[in-house]
Amino acid sequence: MSVTAAGGFRAAGVAAGLKLSGKPDVALVVNDGPRHAAAAVFTSNRCKANPVLWSERTIVDGRLTAVVLNSGGANCYNGPDGFQTTHASAELVAELTGGQAFDVAVCSTGLIGQPLDRPILEAGIRAAAEVLSADGGPAAAQAIMTTDTVRKEAVATGDGWVVGGMAKGAGMLAPALATMLVVITTDAVADAATLDAALRTATTTTFDRLDTDGCMSTNDTVVLMASGASGVAADPGALAGAVTRVCADLAEQLWHDAEGAHHDIRIEVTGAVTGADAVEVARAVARSNLFKAAVFGNDPNWGRVLAAVGTTTAAFEPEKIDISMNGVTVCRAGGTQLGEPSGAVDLTGRDVHVLVDLNEGGQTAAILTSDLTHDYVHENSAYST
Amino acid sequence: MSVTAAGGFRAAGVAAGLKLSGKPDVALVVNDGPRHAAAAVFTSNRCKANPVLWSERTIVDGRLTAVVLNSGGANCYNGPDGFQTTHASAELVAELTGGQAFDVAVCSTGLIGQPLDRPILEAGIRAAAEVLSADGGPAAAQAIMTTDTVRKEAVATGDGWVVGGMAKGAGMLAPALATMLVVITTDAVADAATLDAALRTATTTTFDRLDTDGCMSTNDTVVLMASGASGVAADPGALAGAVTRVCADLAEQLWHDAEGAHHDIRIEVTGAVTGADAVEVARAVARSNLFKAAVFGNDPNWGRVLAAVGTTTAAFEPEKIDISMNGVTVCRAGGTQLGEPSGAVDLTGRDVHVLVDLNEGGQTAAILTSDLTHDYVHENSAYST
Repeated sequence: MSVTAAGGFRAAGVAAGLKLSGKPDVALVVNDGPRHAAAAVFTSNRCKANPVLWSERTIVDGRLTAVVLNSGGANCYNGPDGFQTTHASAELVAELTGGQAFDVAVCSTGLIGQPLDRPILEAGIRAAAEVLSADGGPAAAQAIMTTDTVRKEAVATGDGWVVGGMAKGAGMLAPALATMLVVITTDAVADAATLDAALRTATTTTFDRLDTDGCMSTNDTVVLMASGASGVAADPGALAGAVTRVCADLAEQLWHDAEGAHHDIRIEVTGAVTGADAVEVARAVARSNLFKAAVFGNDPNWGRVLAAVGTTTAAFEPEKIDISMNGVTVCRAGGTQLGEPSGAVDLTGRDVHVLVDLNEGGQTAAILTSDLTHDYVHENSAYST
Repeated sequence: MSVTAAGGFRAAGVAAGLKLSGKPDVALVVNDGPRHAAAAVFTSNRCKANPVLWSERTIVDGRLTAVVLNSGGANCYNGPDGFQTTHASAELVAELTGGQAFDVAVCSTGLIGQPLDRPILEAGIRAAAEVLSADGGPAAAQAIMTTDTVRKEAVATGDGWVVGGMAKGAGMLAPALATMLVVITTDAVADAATLDAALRTATTTTFDRLDTDGCMSTNDTVVLMASGASGVAADPGALAGAVTRVCADLAEQLWHDAEGAHHDIRIEVTGAVTGADAVEVARAVARSNLFKAAVFGNDPNWGRVLAAVGTTTAAFEPEKIDISMNGVTVCRAGGTQLGEPSGAVDLTGRDVHVLVDLNEGGQTAAILTSDLTHDYVHENSAYST
């Protein structure tokens, strides 16, 4: 039931007509309280969409009563009218659900630079407000899909409380959250500071470790709202754990549904001196188009892994690096010792595990990425046409 | 005549059998003097191939008598035997051409992690040494080709002296020189320090501005040798200018022959506060897979340009940025003013010019890149198989 798994929330998803396909494109998630604590994190892209500019301001006081989301338009770099559309949509949600516009976060996804049709969006919001329900989570999750092929929902349970969430995103997944809209709800009693800490803990090791194509969105938003409807005060550590489980679950779903991907590649780095080194090395490999194209061809080309490692500033010596692919150690000590034959590596399945052992320290990290395929090129060369 | 355009040089290219195709794969360029000043720059990848490890040492004294190059194997991360093969090839060249092994630079290109067959390489070197000639430049340029579809050669003339060069490289072109082997010769009289300054000036604004797929090679090498055969001492500024012209010419040839490219994209950034800002912004756009896939689809998707700009640390404000594509200003003032319609942009030709005006300062820079195509994916997923 995703965002309506937790008590105190209603949601809806409707087809307003923003998408030419006629598919659902406006979602609304309302927190009926009794509490309205909230936290959010946003894209680190310096070119931000109007809904991000708006929502960054609304979250400052740690309070939200609703989130309105639309697919079918990013509302980004389309002139001053775009920001006014975001503002107007928040005002309308507040009017319809009984709150203040500044307590309504707004999320949009779609093409940059195109006008977002305000009358259509507003009609959609009115329609969604009319069908808000305590089991509207799946409809909301459906309405935020763009090139997603499946809905993304997750739930985790705590001691007397629940955390649920929904996400969209299949391309542009990258550092620091990329076109990804995520709404997470809980009925635990928790203040905004606790929610903020839990959310940042969770995203750092989940969405931030997903890097399917190295591109960063202008619209990424992850919102966490707490209704307090369970009446149970959550232990901060337990809450952070549950939020992390939901984020990890959603991140894996985004990974498996990445645009055009034929392989889900987990780049794991061990033996790093620092966690930051491990992340840097894993991300460098995840961003090598040559490596990702090789995986598409089921080719265990570990030289391209090594070449990517060499572009980093991490502490390592080339002749100490071991690389294994799907359990076969194809490179030992940077090639100075005989590795197992590349022919023993089977990359024909969906899952690819690349393990890079720097043999320098005790830190580890993993980045989730995808292969570079004809389908990725096709989907992204034909997206706006 | 490329590397043999300048007096004092002989070259050769032969088919030794390192390539399964039977195409030429060993090249030799010999400086007959009377002078032997030289300079070189190498990949900044920290995982370096054996020939790079060797050549970095040979260039320390600013003197080279020959360069031996092979395609059909990168001689990289293939164990201690690989370095010995590099060493042995330099010794053999020295023996055959009358010099010292430490005055022979070695360059290799091909697959990483594979043994390089020493007897075949040595037989090739012997064969090449026998056919060295003052018009052997084209044969040498032919022998270093891998996925290149055409030879790359260039010549520039000075006041009484000549600069000539050859290059290979079609994939993995990236920051700080990527799999690219370049040999440049001149008959000017110039010392090693002058050559080094000229070469670094030239590569900074040419090869370093070529970034076709963001991947950095383990083998990049650019060598400049001066024979002094003209007897004319070159003005340092004029020599740097001529070397820069040759490097720019070769870089453009590499760009036009990039693996799988359908469009040659020049990303020009103007109005930057610093040159470094301009380069950072242009490179960020050049590395956006989403933008590059859109260009492949002839889609002037300027939102993806803006999203890439937003990932940089350059001084800019989104609402001041203008973007034009092939002369059409599709984005004015970050979308706050009406741009020309995207439909007016014609991307059907080979050449694509993207101009990003940050409107902040007076600095400018350009990066040359390629679109992301099915052919790129195909070529790089099937490369080693």
